Amino acid sequence: MTDVSNRPCITLTGAEHALQAALRHADEIGVPVCVAVTDRGGNLVSFARQDDAPLMSAQLAQDKAYSVVAFKGLATREWWDLIRDDAPLRHGIVKTDRLTVFGGGVPIAAGDEVIGAIGVSGGSAEQDHDIATAGACVLGGS
Amino acid sequence: MTDVSNRPCITLTGAEHALQAALRHADEIGVPVCVAVTDRGGNLVSFARQDDAPLMSAQLAQDKAYSVVAFKGLATREWWDLIRDDAPLRHGIVKTDRLTVFGGGVPIAAGDEVIGAIGVSGGSAEQDHDIATAGACVLGGS
Amino acid sequence: MTDVSNRPCITLTGAEHALQAALRHADEIGVPVCVAVTDRGGNLVSFARQDDAPLMSAQLAQDKAYSVVAFKGLATREWWDLIRDDAPLRHGIVKTDRLTVFGGGVPIAAGDEVIGAIGVSGGSAEQDHDIATAGACVLGGS
Amino acid sequence: MTDVSNRPCITLTGAEHALQAALRHADEIGVPVCVAVTDRGGNLVSFARQDDAPLMSAQLAQDKAYSVVAFKGLATREWWDLIRDDAPLRHGIVKTDRLTVFGGGVPIAAGDEVIGAIGVSGGSAEQDHDIATAGACVLGGS
Repeated sequence: MTDVSNRPCITLTGAEHALQAALRHADEIGVPVCVAVTDRGGNLVSFARQDDAPLMSAQLAQDKAYSVVAFKGLATREWWDLIRDDAPLRHGIVKTDRLTVFGGGVPIAAGDEVIGAIGVSGGSAEQDHDIATAGACVLGGS
Repeated sequence: MTDVSNRPCITLTGAEHALQAALRHADEIGVPVCVAVTDRGGNLVSFARQDDAPLMSAQLAQDKAYSVVAFKGLATREWWDLIRDDAPLRHGIVKTDRLTVFGGGVPIAAGDEVIGAIGVSGGSAEQDHDIATAGACVLGGS
Repeated sequence: MTDVSNRPCITLTGAEHALQAALRHADEIGVPVCVAVTDRGGNLVSFARQDDAPLMSAQLAQDKAYSVVAFKGLATREWWDLIRDDAPLRHGIVKTDRLTVFGGGVPIAAGDEVIGAIGVSGGSAEQDHDIATAGACVLGGS
Repeated sequence: MTDVSNRPCITLTGAEHALQAALRHADEIGVPVCVAVTDRGGNLVSFARQDDAPLMSAQLAQDKAYSVVAFKGLATREWWDLIRDDAPLRHGIVKTDRLTVFGGGVPIAAGDEVIGAIGVSGGSAEQDHDIATAGACVLGGS
């Protein structure tokens, strides 16, 4: 064990690459969305709200990205399978501040390490997940 | 793509027309309510609490109007059909700050564009929806 | 008096133009910052945090942009002259939620109308103001 | 001492009279404002935001009205004389939630009893006070 370890971290350049790729995919499928990219510490790095994206999606996109880095890099759509058959958890954890348990948040990875996350809101959970994945893939993620 | 676009916005005059029409309908059916009108940015424009309306309704009426402009102009009573058969969304989105998933919030439209919303609370969800609709209709909405 | 009025609103394209111009200016003077662009309703449209910008600046940049659109399009550095010789206001208004009374927030205008704002945090108040101005100028603002 | 006492309370009709009188005065002096009327319990009864009034004023107007009913019916502009020469109070009480210590909030009275308050924000503290007074006077207040 050493006192210090080097960790790969997403840069603004990386976050903007992911965000722009997500916006392009949203344009292609015609779904206006909000897109947020956070670093591995859960702090916002890059954000965009497309014209006519729902106002409510601005916070949801950020919360989805946060949820991913805040719990093992798990894509938000994976949460339901974890909690569906566990009643105490299903009732008890959903209220956790900022935790989002439906699709639209995916990890951004470098090699096998989560370096950030991208969250998308504005379409269906499936659309949001696909748009986020289009963004994360640019950096080798998801 | 341009840097600026012109968008129709509700005025205080328009908001008061809608609010007074809603109050008249509430009087007609004998249900004291709170009524809130927000602009397309979710900011409050006009509000009234009728004598004997529930105190709790003051915030609920504002949240209902906010919910409409914050998500695609969807009337709040439409939310349940969106989430009833989608367990992750049903469990996961209801906690969203200010989102209200029962009746009483309806859009105010100009042509095909949402320019604001009206939210009503104090009666049943159906009564609240009808009162809100009576307000929105004055401006051609809902 | 009419029920509806048309108002110019900033688009994501416009917000990204302003944001990128601000980031370039920050790079030129070597000050890593956070930059936020809001629309006239105070809702976030575009955001970037440069590598090594202070974490605290993420919220401050958003609050500065909000402060501008929330009060007459006043640049945040103008606040001090308004309140310095008015003791009740100086003591009483600074606590207002999200209000920021030092430099770094400037309006984005279209003609004589405020259509949004840009907020910058990370350098001195003067540097932040200059970076924000470099962004707003792209759209004819400040 | 009896178990129950009758207290005069403002009605929605009364609140709307005061609010409309305040809006007329604001129009006359050409200052767009937000106006809020609360009952003696501090709960919002009536609210209006004029076109081009500052967004920030929406909450400030409500807080000014609340401050009045929350402390002895004192007009908010009277606070400074209470605290200016009392350093602990001046530093310690201003942060009190919703307390506003500059002009714009005035009581609405019936006889010698405070039945509600009106708060105005959008102009200078003096203008706000005058507009609020124009509203309160309709009901015999201030």
